[in-house]
Amino acid sequence: MKQVVTFGEIMLRLSPPLHYRFTQANSFEATYGGGEANVGAALAGLGVPAAHVTCFPPNELGQAATQSFQRLGVDMSHTVYSGKRLGLYFLEVGASMRASKVVYDRADSSFANLDPAAFDWDEILKNAQWLHWTGITPAISASAAQAISEGIQAARRMGLTVSADVNYRRNLWQYGQRAQNVMPDLVAGCDVVVCSENDADDLFGIKPAAGTDNKFASISEQLMTRFPQIKQVISTRRKTQSASHERIKGQLFDGAYSETPYYDITPVVDRIGGGDAFLGGFIYGTLNYATPQEALHFAVVASALKHTIHGDVNLVTVAEVEHVLQGNTTGRLVR
Amino acid sequence: MKQVVTFGEIMLRLSPPLHYRFTQANSFEATYGGGEANVGAALAGLGVPAAHVTCFPPNELGQAATQSFQRLGVDMSHTVYSGKRLGLYFLEVGASMRASKVVYDRADSSFANLDPAAFDWDEILKNAQWLHWTGITPAISASAAQAISEGIQAARRMGLTVSADVNYRRNLWQYGQRAQNVMPDLVAGCDVVVCSENDADDLFGIKPAAGTDNKFASISEQLMTRFPQIKQVISTRRKTQSASHERIKGQLFDGAYSETPYYDITPVVDRIGGGDAFLGGFIYGTLNYATPQEALHFAVVASALKHTIHGDVNLVTVAEVEHVLQGNTTGRLVR
Amino acid sequence: MKQVVTFGEIMLRLSPPLHYRFTQANSFEATYGGGEANVGAALAGLGVPAAHVTCFPPNELGQAATQSFQRLGVDMSHTVYSGKRLGLYFLEVGASMRASKVVYDRADSSFANLDPAAFDWDEILKNAQWLHWTGITPAISASAAQAISEGIQAARRMGLTVSADVNYRRNLWQYGQRAQNVMPDLVAGCDVVVCSENDADDLFGIKPAAGTDNKFASISEQLMTRFPQIKQVISTRRKTQSASHERIKGQLFDGAYSETPYYDITPVVDRIGGGDAFLGGFIYGTLNYATPQEALHFAVVASALKHTIHGDVNLVTVAEVEHVLQGNTTGRLVR
Amino acid sequence: MKQVVTFGEIMLRLSPPLHYRFTQANSFEATYGGGEANVGAALAGLGVPAAHVTCFPPNELGQAATQSFQRLGVDMSHTVYSGKRLGLYFLEVGASMRASKVVYDRADSSFANLDPAAFDWDEILKNAQWLHWTGITPAISASAAQAISEGIQAARRMGLTVSADVNYRRNLWQYGQRAQNVMPDLVAGCDVVVCSENDADDLFGIKPAAGTDNKFASISEQLMTRFPQIKQVISTRRKTQSASHERIKGQLFDGAYSETPYYDITPVVDRIGGGDAFLGGFIYGTLNYATPQEALHFAVVASALKHTIHGDVNLVTVAEVEHVLQGNTTGRLVR
Amino acid sequence: MKQVVTFGEIMLRLSPPLHYRFTQANSFEATYGGGEANVGAALAGLGVPAAHVTCFPPNELGQAATQSFQRLGVDMSHTVYSGKRLGLYFLEVGASMRASKVVYDRADSSFANLDPAAFDWDEILKNAQWLHWTGITPAISASAAQAISEGIQAARRMGLTVSADVNYRRNLWQYGQRAQNVMPDLVAGCDVVVCSENDADDLFGIKPAAGTDNKFASISEQLMTRFPQIKQVISTRRKTQSASHERIKGQLFDGAYSETPYYDITPVVDRIGGGDAFLGGFIYGTLNYATPQEALHFAVVASALKHTIHGDVNLVTVAEVEHVLQGNTTGRLVR
Amino acid sequence: MKQVVTFGEIMLRLSPPLHYRFTQANSFEATYGGGEANVGAALAGLGVPAAHVTCFPPNELGQAATQSFQRLGVDMSHTVYSGKRLGLYFLEVGASMRASKVVYDRADSSFANLDPAAFDWDEILKNAQWLHWTGITPAISASAAQAISEGIQAARRMGLTVSADVNYRRNLWQYGQRAQNVMPDLVAGCDVVVCSENDADDLFGIKPAAGTDNKFASISEQLMTRFPQIKQVISTRRKTQSASHERIKGQLFDGAYSETPYYDITPVVDRIGGGDAFLGGFIYGTLNYATPQEALHFAVVASALKHTIHGDVNLVTVAEVEHVLQGNTTGRLVR
Repeated sequence: MKQVVTFGEIMLRLSPPLHYRFTQANSFEATYGGGEANVGAALAGLGVPAAHVTCFPPNELGQAATQSFQRLGVDMSHTVYSGKRLGLYFLEVGASMRASKVVYDRADSSFANLDPAAFDWDEILKNAQWLHWTGITPAISASAAQAISEGIQAARRMGLTVSADVNYRRNLWQYGQRAQNVMPDLVAGCDVVVCSENDADDLFGIKPAAGTDNKFASISEQLMTRFPQIKQVISTRRKTQSASHERIKGQLFDGAYSETPYYDITPVVDRIGGGDAFLGGFIYGTLNYATPQEALHFAVVASALKHTIHGDVNLVTVAEVEHVLQGNTTGRLVR
Repeated sequence: MKQVVTFGEIMLRLSPPLHYRFTQANSFEATYGGGEANVGAALAGLGVPAAHVTCFPPNELGQAATQSFQRLGVDMSHTVYSGKRLGLYFLEVGASMRASKVVYDRADSSFANLDPAAFDWDEILKNAQWLHWTGITPAISASAAQAISEGIQAARRMGLTVSADVNYRRNLWQYGQRAQNVMPDLVAGCDVVVCSENDADDLFGIKPAAGTDNKFASISEQLMTRFPQIKQVISTRRKTQSASHERIKGQLFDGAYSETPYYDITPVVDRIGGGDAFLGGFIYGTLNYATPQEALHFAVVASALKHTIHGDVNLVTVAEVEHVLQGNTTGRLVR
Repeated sequence: MKQVVTFGEIMLRLSPPLHYRFTQANSFEATYGGGEANVGAALAGLGVPAAHVTCFPPNELGQAATQSFQRLGVDMSHTVYSGKRLGLYFLEVGASMRASKVVYDRADSSFANLDPAAFDWDEILKNAQWLHWTGITPAISASAAQAISEGIQAARRMGLTVSADVNYRRNLWQYGQRAQNVMPDLVAGCDVVVCSENDADDLFGIKPAAGTDNKFASISEQLMTRFPQIKQVISTRRKTQSASHERIKGQLFDGAYSETPYYDITPVVDRIGGGDAFLGGFIYGTLNYATPQEALHFAVVASALKHTIHGDVNLVTVAEVEHVLQGNTTGRLVR
Repeated sequence: MKQVVTFGEIMLRLSPPLHYRFTQANSFEATYGGGEANVGAALAGLGVPAAHVTCFPPNELGQAATQSFQRLGVDMSHTVYSGKRLGLYFLEVGASMRASKVVYDRADSSFANLDPAAFDWDEILKNAQWLHWTGITPAISASAAQAISEGIQAARRMGLTVSADVNYRRNLWQYGQRAQNVMPDLVAGCDVVVCSENDADDLFGIKPAAGTDNKFASISEQLMTRFPQIKQVISTRRKTQSASHERIKGQLFDGAYSETPYYDITPVVDRIGGGDAFLGGFIYGTLNYATPQEALHFAVVASALKHTIHGDVNLVTVAEVEHVLQGNTTGRLVR
Repeated sequence: MKQVVTFGEIMLRLSPPLHYRFTQANSFEATYGGGEANVGAALAGLGVPAAHVTCFPPNELGQAATQSFQRLGVDMSHTVYSGKRLGLYFLEVGASMRASKVVYDRADSSFANLDPAAFDWDEILKNAQWLHWTGITPAISASAAQAISEGIQAARRMGLTVSADVNYRRNLWQYGQRAQNVMPDLVAGCDVVVCSENDADDLFGIKPAAGTDNKFASISEQLMTRFPQIKQVISTRRKTQSASHERIKGQLFDGAYSETPYYDITPVVDRIGGGDAFLGGFIYGTLNYATPQEALHFAVVASALKHTIHGDVNLVTVAEVEHVLQGNTTGRLVR
Repeated sequence: MKQVVTFGEIMLRLSPPLHYRFTQANSFEATYGGGEANVGAALAGLGVPAAHVTCFPPNELGQAATQSFQRLGVDMSHTVYSGKRLGLYFLEVGASMRASKVVYDRADSSFANLDPAAFDWDEILKNAQWLHWTGITPAISASAAQAISEGIQAARRMGLTVSADVNYRRNLWQYGQRAQNVMPDLVAGCDVVVCSENDADDLFGIKPAAGTDNKFASISEQLMTRFPQIKQVISTRRKTQSASHERIKGQLFDGAYSETPYYDITPVVDRIGGGDAFLGGFIYGTLNYATPQEALHFAVVASALKHTIHGDVNLVTVAEVEHVLQGNTTGRLVR
């Protein structure tokens, strides 16, 4: 099978153990993750060949980050080593009504300062069938935006499927460009997008039609009209009960609307990467199931399972997802 | 008071910390347990003299396993040291809808290769009032089956009470005998058995009477007819909500049916050994209470408490079980 | 802003990790706390200048205890170093229906043996606006009772607000005096008291008026009649579901009765110090909000958040409490 | 083989991990030990039946202490549960020129407050061949002194060998008696004593003969003259290089003087209990070897090995000691 | 550059933390290693393309083992998943005169039961320049011996360099064949062998010429005479001071004898894999340096550095080895 | 006593546990330190009032850094909160010949971007007797250089003693100024400097007089001629044996030369901050001893002890230093 290629920043994540607060931390648990690489790693775990493309500093932390994804079977051979530092983020894990917190320290990272010319997309994509990116990448820097733009163009030229999680994070856009100017051209090249109603409004000024019963379908329809390449809009919907208790379902619009039941997750072990697990599951499902509804259901269960796993990456097998899909949601011991 | 003697394999249990997956484990927490020894250790903790009889390799791991139960006050002086390896199992602790998983690595253990002649049952049982075994033992090997068979015969001969958790695990029966051929003779020597409806069907072809309102009573009655030595059939019934949330009650048939209320356990700290705690509690209750209903209630509360305790063994006192039995289920701080 | 001064014992708290039982502990997590110092530290974290007054042994453990509160910004410069040992308590953290347990080892501590003359209250209180104490202090020893008595008198003389958590613990009163004889004179000097219905009965023989709809208001009214200096009686009310699940609300009587909604806490990370967090929140709220109702609401949310934080001390900021006060109880990730 | 019985206090030892200082400790490693019980546990590990007699508080810490030695095979069935607290000590592990430090918190322990009448020495010693005690016990309290005095008398009456590590610790003698008055009567009942030159001077006013070449032989000879029951005086001699590097040899006087070579230990993993390991080794050697010189050599190697083992207790087998005795001091990997 | 291919078993290594003894272990640190895979991983870390060929059980432990080497950049794509269990070994880390200990539990592993036909050597070696194996592999089972025999034949046929660490371990040869019968044919196909004087005697009956000054040269010369394909014999020589202090040098005979200076290692962090690091270093050196003497020196420094690194695998870069080779042996801080 | 004020950056230090390599780290131990603050904290531990002046980001990491030094008794009330990030460094702890490694990630920190106008030196220094800085500060940024320049001027104006560790780190000077241009004016304001022969050459072009027997005295003399305010030049001299074994002595020139004996440190627990401990010891000694030779000796012993303590900061008391000064270098247990 051909590769799914993902492109984006990988950061070192530093978390106090258990539910300790930042100021209580005498140690930080260290893992590596990024919104796009998490998708690749999830796919590798599901048996889909995956390659991630990124830029790390030429030091031991860059090496450790490479090894972290290499370990999961992701092809890291396209990594560019340049620049001075690995982006970091600090994560404090909340509980009950106390929210988890993230403190970013990613400015001026190697990835932010990447040289777009260092990525030979024709070479990178030559064994690929799919390119995935997120709205975080063009938010980081002009050069990151340029690199993914070139990647999308190459992918289109080479006939790959392109997917994006548009994921608008206002605080990230610091380099002088507005998301609203940059994102439309990039999204125009996509076949599949994850886009919430807020994202649609913030990025594209698309609001649900007045009085609609189905806001998600409404904004999805408008998105597909504006960007005719898009064939599927998907999203998770969360009913967050507390930092320790989540409920999620999946939504899909591909002309028609479909959705999954809600899945209940309590306790939540680690919510970071839940959306990436959803995307990874959806790509897997698209490549392996007959209908988008099956892919959607696979995706939301994969995401639910991710919430029970430490770290950014969804470490589940196809068999484990399918076990839950078949109704085994009670977590009975497997011997 | 005379001893309760248990007989069976003890394994080294290796678990990744917290909810880590096997592939994430950089360390394994090490505890020792076995379905029968767990009963003995629970009894020792409740103040009942207990001895466990088993076979370990003559190496440091065998020594550590011995010490682990010796520490809890179990008489380990009958341990036979022979063979080459300690049986192991790896336990991954699930959460929410993600199931816990067990990977066994117990083949060819010292216990499986025990020499039945190494156990002098007349000596072992000379200070005993009760012998307990489980269906795991005869599943392991012909020699293990022979040893427990001889033990049961000695116990009968010496007038002890004999109990068994019939516990049918299809995968374990690998040595050429079928459980259906081996178990009946052994069960025939028992006074008390733990037997679920599935076990009754799988092992003895006993199915609930058509149209019965009370399947457990129905199969128990048939069991007692088939095996007249049996005077009590007991079982837990679980309404598993998730890997983190369990509900259990106890059931008893001794001619008449009785049951306890359900007890709610959330979060579940460690579900392994919940059944053994139930049995330990029932033996304690039988020896200390006036009625089997009281023993049953004690047993199910003991089992519920076990779910809140790390490791295979139920580390609770009589006072703690009785505190909950008296309705203190809200876990208020004890100063 | 002038200081809030607290006075009382600080103990070393030793807890097995996670939910391990005492007999399973190969290590104990070490933190330091005390009912009064926890209030001071909570206030320091909320930006209110706080000083704690206590007595430690002149050894490394006393030094560590000092540093522990100094770190949180509490002025520890009034610490007296004398006596021989630091009081200890061992805490086992329960789960579900298994209660947490405390084993005290505080007899004959440096604090119990303090010399009242070592505390120069005029000096200690010269920059203070508020003095807080609890019913634990006069329970410890005659000299501790005398010291706080002198402190209260000085505070009254100097025009400070005085608050107390009357907190009756029968087992603590071991030195030959009865709480019922000692407490009234101390409480008579207070402006604000935390007092439950049980405390009112046990300490002052005050029972709710027969047939009252509001027992808390009834006992509060009687308290305020008996002790005219008291202007506010407050309390938390708990509906404990299990060791892992708590519900709390706040109650206030200041002539009129008011209360807050219940807040749900699941899972409970650490319930020790929940009452101290309530008091710290109430003092903060009194100093910063227009109405006692606002102070009460701040206090109960602060207490709820404390249940999600390891250790005795409430490590939350004003912004975090206000975030929940504004209805954000679902713990959504803060980036 | 008959038991060796030891009598004395067991304390909870709390150590910061690695080389952390007390004030840096966020956790303490918890082990249990005592100068006499360490001897018993060492003997149990060497295959000699051992029983330890002590007094613990009737709480979970007392239970944990019991289990800790029960685990090692020491007969703890004579434990008396009374009093209020378990003695503690805090240990900070030094390195290089930084000394390890001990902070004791053992005053008013259950053992210090034991009731001598609670120990039925005829019963305790009925299966014993040897009684061992140390000078720490009579230092703790009058009742402890009385208990061991009665034990020694019973042992003499019953024909047991009695050994003592006289171990003078000036700071411990706080209850109004002087060691110099108490110890002679106790030592008079001993067959074997560990006594350094300082101890001989401090306790008995015995100084080496002027101008002697062998101070140890000189004081030993005088001891044996003063206390004719004594047949052997032994001691370790240390050339401490640093907290991380120790050199020890063994010395024996039994009419004639003998000694072992020095053994070099670097790094020292844990020096606590090195003397107890020496004694345990000497008792083992006395019971199993033809000559006291062999026993002495076994003892010093056992002690040297103890320095490489965490905790108070020497966890080595006879085979391991003999391996080193045969000259294998280079620690080559054993497969 | 073409790959170096290694073939052999990888085991899960379970070690108590720090210097804890097996019976003290409440957890085991988990790493994965094997004498041949360690060579491959060391080479990957030095920048040489490496592939390892092995057989794992099709379960999570096999997956974890694969990931462990994949992470280090070793091509694990030839792994065969079959059989039932992963081989294990338990390692206790000694100190000073206390030896480290290994308890093997590798019998009946997936590797031992591999099917030689599952390995397509022409395919495996098609991009390779070098095949490395050790004497452990043919000791494990007849099928393992057959597999490596076929591998060596293919390598010879395809013109690769073949190296072996002959590594005679008497205890391993359990399947009915004698090493002395099996090894000669395998060694005959090698260009480079690691062979100590003991190995030469045990395996081939080759003893140093009487009265020789250089035993290593003497046995090497005879080996090269007996097996003309061999062009280089190498070995480390150790002067072990203690479990914590090692001295090593390297020796080479390729017609002429050469050796390196001794390197002093204190403290030893982890001695396992020191020989594999030597071999990895020698292969790197052979591929990158002009003379075998340079390769030898690189190898011994790589091995010395390995002793300072946790786990079986040598995690050092070329720059780090060369830094020491240039005389920087004092470990000064690198900023 | 008046304060010693230090000024400089404090970084979060992240270290893999034990001797793990960066790429093996699954967690990092978190401590906070900086060359100047370490001096202040050492002084606070020695009983000298100390204040540290710095700039942190207004986030939880800044708060944690503040608390870390506040805990040690350092007055942190002058901290300025501005900018975006806390500087970090990653530390890998070597062993034997493997060097420890530091990876800095401090660019663009809050401190580097501080506003010099935010520091009111007249206010900061009003209760001070001494100002200490290092050559790291002016290397970080122009604004940091300006801030310390203003601080030195204020200190001179107010009659304080000024000390500096000139500490030339070539890699740090990245903002466009050369150390050689910036440092002379700053050093001109100092009374005491730490300056090695390399520093003297690199920064000031001062080389030892040709043929001198005492290079340190020679460069010190020239320094004092060039900068007449300097009255004392001090330095440590190291004979580094390995990453685990250090030897240090102290040197002083104040017109005449003096030095201390070498102190041997093995094992080294943590070498970071050894120089800062020396300086802290020297300032303490200057304030408390009669002669600079005594101060120097105190300083070198304090530094030696620091090598045995985890973290950047020297946590020793005066009594502990004096104990070693009195010749107690063998680290015998202190009870």
